[in-house]
Amino acid sequence: MSDTKLSVNRAALSLVRKLCAKAENYGVIVEETTSGSTLVDAGIKARGGFLAGKTITEICLGGYGKAQVIPVKYGDFALPSISVQTNHPAVATLGSQFAGWQIKADKYSAIGSGPARALSLKPKELYKKINYRDEADLAILVLETSKRPPDEVIQQISRQCKVTPQNLSLILVPTASVAGSTQVSGRIAETGLHKLTKLGLDPQVVKYAWGCAPIVPVHPRFDEAMGRTNDAILYAGTAHYTVNYEDDEELERLVRKTPSSASKGYGRPFLEVFKEAGYDFYKIDPGLFAPAVIVVDNMRTGKIHRAGDLNVEVLKRSLGI
Amino acid sequence: MSDTKLSVNRAALSLVRKLCAKAENYGVIVEETTSGSTLVDAGIKARGGFLAGKTITEICLGGYGKAQVIPVKYGDFALPSISVQTNHPAVATLGSQFAGWQIKADKYSAIGSGPARALSLKPKELYKKINYRDEADLAILVLETSKRPPDEVIQQISRQCKVTPQNLSLILVPTASVAGSTQVSGRIAETGLHKLTKLGLDPQVVKYAWGCAPIVPVHPRFDEAMGRTNDAILYAGTAHYTVNYEDDEELERLVRKTPSSASKGYGRPFLEVFKEAGYDFYKIDPGLFAPAVIVVDNMRTGKIHRAGDLNVEVLKRSLGI
Amino acid sequence: MSDTKLSVNRAALSLVRKLCAKAENYGVIVEETTSGSTLVDAGIKARGGFLAGKTITEICLGGYGKAQVIPVKYGDFALPSISVQTNHPAVATLGSQFAGWQIKADKYSAIGSGPARALSLKPKELYKKINYRDEADLAILVLETSKRPPDEVIQQISRQCKVTPQNLSLILVPTASVAGSTQVSGRIAETGLHKLTKLGLDPQVVKYAWGCAPIVPVHPRFDEAMGRTNDAILYAGTAHYTVNYEDDEELERLVRKTPSSASKGYGRPFLEVFKEAGYDFYKIDPGLFAPAVIVVDNMRTGKIHRAGDLNVEVLKRSLGI
Repeated sequence: MSDTKLSVNRAALSLVRKLCAKAENYGVIVEETTSGSTLVDAGIKARGGFLAGKTITEICLGGYGKAQVIPVKYGDFALPSISVQTNHPAVATLGSQFAGWQIKADKYSAIGSGPARALSLKPKELYKKINYRDEADLAILVLETSKRPPDEVIQQISRQCKVTPQNLSLILVPTASVAGSTQVSGRIAETGLHKLTKLGLDPQVVKYAWGCAPIVPVHPRFDEAMGRTNDAILYAGTAHYTVNYEDDEELERLVRKTPSSASKGYGRPFLEVFKEAGYDFYKIDPGLFAPAVIVVDNMRTGKIHRAGDLNVEVLKRSLGI
Repeated sequence: MSDTKLSVNRAALSLVRKLCAKAENYGVIVEETTSGSTLVDAGIKARGGFLAGKTITEICLGGYGKAQVIPVKYGDFALPSISVQTNHPAVATLGSQFAGWQIKADKYSAIGSGPARALSLKPKELYKKINYRDEADLAILVLETSKRPPDEVIQQISRQCKVTPQNLSLILVPTASVAGSTQVSGRIAETGLHKLTKLGLDPQVVKYAWGCAPIVPVHPRFDEAMGRTNDAILYAGTAHYTVNYEDDEELERLVRKTPSSASKGYGRPFLEVFKEAGYDFYKIDPGLFAPAVIVVDNMRTGKIHRAGDLNVEVLKRSLGI
Repeated sequence: MSDTKLSVNRAALSLVRKLCAKAENYGVIVEETTSGSTLVDAGIKARGGFLAGKTITEICLGGYGKAQVIPVKYGDFALPSISVQTNHPAVATLGSQFAGWQIKADKYSAIGSGPARALSLKPKELYKKINYRDEADLAILVLETSKRPPDEVIQQISRQCKVTPQNLSLILVPTASVAGSTQVSGRIAETGLHKLTKLGLDPQVVKYAWGCAPIVPVHPRFDEAMGRTNDAILYAGTAHYTVNYEDDEELERLVRKTPSSASKGYGRPFLEVFKEAGYDFYKIDPGLFAPAVIVVDNMRTGKIHRAGDLNVEVLKRSLGI
């Protein structure tokens, strides 16, 4: 089946239904908004947890990926970690999971990720690059936020997705929550593919992807939580891609540039870099947002390209241990 | 949803039904007793196995936890290990999984754990501490035993749980069986929370828990089997808790006292300690029953507290390798 | 339940149905042949992937085993790895999973594994040794091949299994595909049990088995793909068996002879050995086909026997990294 025929919103729907049907097990609170949308709270008033985070990751992957939470050792200590895999890397990660939709309104802002982006086409250039759009009549959006969106924002989202509010499901998950920490680390394969794409690789040559990153303990301050979750990827995340590509030399060149260690700012906890940049994202080398380790194997030639290393010391400094 | 409204017996019921419906896959034998109770043998005449052990662990957690069996490396060798997680640590581990119900009758004795304890309230003080009791009209009890209980014992259990014998399910699992070894190591998160609670922490401040411990090969002698399963926790188990707590100094103090290494008797296989104590449990420092490693992260402050280390050498001596 | 009453074909049927029902998720293409058989392509025209490979492994184990794909570290790098477990080692691995059926016709050849072998009894001596045969009226066969079998071959298979073509399901998976690489490494427990059996152990004394091996990146050349998948087992695979046996000295003797390192040819990538043997399998020490590490624990005595070590250096040479 061609990737262009996939529907990330339809494929993720059964996962959303499962989340709602077993709300108590997942620690989520399900509500219907006045305009008829479904609102799933996975960490604001709700408890959330690893299981919710895992399922939200699979929803973010548009139903075309699998996640699991397992313990992994980093140097002398273990952390629960999330492992993800997908057979449709471009569509599932760039076309759905990528946190690429800035929701902004009068008094509300949140970062949107997940299947609904493939309806509103945020950002448009990326959808051109992967030659994909969904045409489902239902929309599922994950909002990284600690506030419930007002009804006008919900209606705006449904308009942008061209679905009725009744056919819109919103999943709310704060960065500083266990489910939030889980689903952010769950973006490990997306982060690496994004960097490869920015470096010039056509994401459609990537046929399979998997990755693994630690789930960092929650910090109540937003900047600290964001620092930790970034460091999970930058210093302890591994991403692995199987590509079908004609030019191994170019692959090798790209792979060397991909890991976080190939960028300025590498070597210190993200929060330090962020502070030094005057809390201005635009002053940070965007190449820093990449996995610690990247592996690309070329199924056309059998050649395996690797770059980067885990850096447990910086992860420990980031966690203060 | 408040933890006081959870029903561990009702939540575990679907797992018991799954175990019975797929008896052949799980390697269990299901019978109905003369008084109408359901008896699931997971290791006496039955074969049991890892899968049965995993599901019995989830049943013991009252349906509010997840377990999985994965290979983990300890020094230079790997063992299948059980990883558990729960979003309701106090209720799932202390209120259900803890092996706190001594079943005794004329010629029968067994250790009871699992949801039914939240009906019979064994032991009562612990239920006061966690402010929980279940009021379900069905009871599910796991008996660590190598003998089938006589009908009078079954009737006594159902009376103490205030359910009809028809609404009682008993799961039998010997210590010296693969399923038994699996579910005992599955108590890793419970063991650490128990110790923290005895040291003075209010278990209700613990919001999430996970843990991982090796599943040790079965030994036919009860004392050796018990020694090995204890050593799995004491020397190779890791427990991790997320708490919401105001006082990091007190947490640090508690965490330092929690791992097995903080107790007398640490450093030798449990069976040696047990022998030296003249096979008298009451002469052993109760603090010894604790995970090798404990991590507590405070979601209120972001601070992470760690104590203890894995001790693979003692585990190897315990296993005779 | 006695192992002689198991039906590997019936037990695996629900897995085949799941694969077909969720074809898009598993990346497989399902067709009906002219004679009415079901054909599942998991890597020829289809994309396949880890998830398909995992499920095909469970089908190969006759429905009596579980597999999962998790990241595992080998020295300084991680690979997705497959972990398998079964409570019926002899039937599930030797009686079903073993790639013991050479399908040959005019212009077609493939290696058959999985439940259908227990109907056609290929090879017969092995079925005598495990005292097992299936009598189901349906057959499920996995073909390691990169070509679709012609209709005459399908009819020949159904005759040899004594089922109608309508009751035959064939799953096609090339060696040089992600699903293929996954299911070949999924034979880790089978490989070790096969060697133990050839060395003289009665496979029926083996009560539980598990194993873990890396899933190696695909190579387009058949000989390279085969070299890598063999090296995954020979240099990075661990197999573990629980036996009920009277003689620990004999066990120790057998275990020492079992790992790949006990055989001639050990120490170099398999492809080098194969080339040196003039690409003639019969000139290679058959004992080489064995896990790197083998552990046998005796549930009758508690004794644990171990032999072999992982050899990450040779694995890396095999992968060219």
